[in-house]
Amino acid sequence: MTIKPLSDRVVIKMLEAEETTKGGIILTSAAQEKPQVAEVVAVGPGKTVDGKLVPVQLKVGDKVLMSKYSGTEVKVDGEEYTILREEDILAVVE
Amino acid sequence: MTIKPLSDRVVIKMLEAEETTKGGIILTSAAQEKPQVAEVVAVGPGKTVDGKLVPVQLKVGDKVLMSKYSGTEVKVDGEEYTILREEDILAVVE
Amino acid sequence: MTIKPLSDRVVIKMLEAEETTKGGIILTSAAQEKPQVAEVVAVGPGKTVDGKLVPVQLKVGDKVLMSKYSGTEVKVDGEEYTILREEDILAVVE
Amino acid sequence: MTIKPLSDRVVIKMLEAEETTKGGIILTSAAQEKPQVAEVVAVGPGKTVDGKLVPVQLKVGDKVLMSKYSGTEVKVDGEEYTILREEDILAVVE
Amino acid sequence: MTIKPLSDRVVIKMLEAEETTKGGIILTSAAQEKPQVAEVVAVGPGKTVDGKLVPVQLKVGDKVLMSKYSGTEVKVDGEEYTILREEDILAVVE
Amino acid sequence: MTIKPLSDRVVIKMLEAEETTKGGIILTSAAQEKPQVAEVVAVGPGKTVDGKLVPVQLKVGDKVLMSKYSGTEVKVDGEEYTILREEDILAVVE
Amino acid sequence: MTIKPLSDRVVIKMLEAEETTKGGIILTSAAQEKPQVAEVVAVGPGKTVDGKLVPVQLKVGDKVLMSKYSGTEVKVDGEEYTILREEDILAVVE
Repeated sequence: MTIKPLSDRVVIKMLEAEETTKGGIILTSAAQEKPQVAEVVAVGPGKTVDGKLVPVQLKVGDKVLMSKYSGTEVKVDGEEYTILREEDILAVVE
Repeated sequence: MTIKPLSDRVVIKMLEAEETTKGGIILTSAAQEKPQVAEVVAVGPGKTVDGKLVPVQLKVGDKVLMSKYSGTEVKVDGEEYTILREEDILAVVE
Repeated sequence: MTIKPLSDRVVIKMLEAEETTKGGIILTSAAQEKPQVAEVVAVGPGKTVDGKLVPVQLKVGDKVLMSKYSGTEVKVDGEEYTILREEDILAVVE
Repeated sequence: MTIKPLSDRVVIKMLEAEETTKGGIILTSAAQEKPQVAEVVAVGPGKTVDGKLVPVQLKVGDKVLMSKYSGTEVKVDGEEYTILREEDILAVVE
Repeated sequence: MTIKPLSDRVVIKMLEAEETTKGGIILTSAAQEKPQVAEVVAVGPGKTVDGKLVPVQLKVGDKVLMSKYSGTEVKVDGEEYTILREEDILAVVE
Repeated sequence: MTIKPLSDRVVIKMLEAEETTKGGIILTSAAQEKPQVAEVVAVGPGKTVDGKLVPVQLKVGDKVLMSKYSGTEVKVDGEEYTILREEDILAVVE
Repeated sequence: MTIKPLSDRVVIKMLEAEETTKGGIILTSAAQEKPQVAEVVAVGPGKTVDGKLVPVQLKVGDKVLMSKYSGTEVKVDGEEYTILREEDILAVVE
């Protein structure tokens, strides 16, 4: 079963905290919130602006940093994902 | 009796929780809110932008994930539906 | 005495709850609010966008579903009506 | 002494409750607020959109229904008026 | 010492309450706020829209009615003034 | 060390209260807030609108009145400044 | 491991308070918040406006003053950074 996001949305999967520490990337937060490093697992076709499609720039497999409190969480086949707009992705990490 | 949504609105019917679990898709939520997987049962003609009609992309029968707190609930012939704008639909699941 | 709405507004008359039940359409609401099925009794000329009139699509006699909390209630010749913008009408029911 | 409203504003005078009842028009309101039927006593020249003047459509003498809480109240030569934008006028009654 | 307002701002001087009563104009207000009739004492050059200057229409000496809570109060050479945008001026009184 | 503001921002230095009184200009305020007369000490290049640079109109040395609560305070080489957008400057005083 | 900001975002690293004092620049704040002088360590490609890319003007190595409460803090390889939009940068200091 697959999720196909609409418009300029992307589906990301948060990386495990352990995995995150190994990668050396941790997001600081006053309340020790959930880590905000994630991997892109699906991208939408893009947003239509003035009648022209502006494709999503992110690719499946990109490691990304996201804004806090962005997106909606979903659970598919027992796995948790977050769906959010591409503009809520802050940066790619390599 | 049928519902014909206006503009870029769609009418969706929430799938039963049992049915949802069987399909393997559950939306997580702090307060155990109602599931957010639904089936599209009617679509509007689309939104007019700069004098041109932009048709709704979703089709009747699509299984969709929706934003929390989106739309208005209605009851027609004893069945409950939700009417919301297409942009409040996050993704199609297949 | 008649009400002639301005711009893209429409005047609707809520259908009685009994009448509503007979028609099989009831809006659910946490607080058991007033039913939201109504009949269009007057329409405005439309909204002017970029110097061109965009006429109201709804017609007198249409049965409609409206957003909760939309519009302003008025009483004319002892009858209660609601005046609201066409974009606050969710769907037509047939 | 006269009031000349600017832009797309109009000056209206609320009709007395008695006068209103006689005319058969009363606005319902949870808190029994002041009636919202008024007569237009002055209109502005209109709003300039994209360098072109869009004249006010309402005329002096029109009986109108207004949004609740719209406009600013003023007192001139002992009479009370309300100044508001034309778009806050809901409908003309005849 | 003179105040030269920028953009589409105007400088107004509130008329004294006595003077106001004499002129027959008083703004009503729930909390008996300060009168809102004022005289224009300086006008800015206007606002630039799409690269073209839209001059201020008000002239020095105009008696005006202003929105409540509009503008910023300043004191120059012992006199109090209010600086606000032309669009916050409701009407001219003559 | 110099501050070069970006876009349509300007850097201003508040004039001392004494100096302000001497100049005859004091901003009134309910809470006796800090004076709001300032001298422009640096200007940005301007804002780009539709691909064209709109230069800042204010010049270094201008005495200006500013909106309350505008801008961000900074301290450079022991001196305090405020950085704000040109549109938050109300007027020039001469 | 590197951070590549998206759109018109930049990655900055706050300068140490000591380092800041040495440079003579301190941001004042009611609550003695963290200093707001930072060095640009990465810039995004720019924002696309009307189909044309508007490149980021800031360069890596620029010392900048930022708006309070702007951006999102991240930690990469043990170092803390802030990611924010270029428009939230107030000025360059030299």
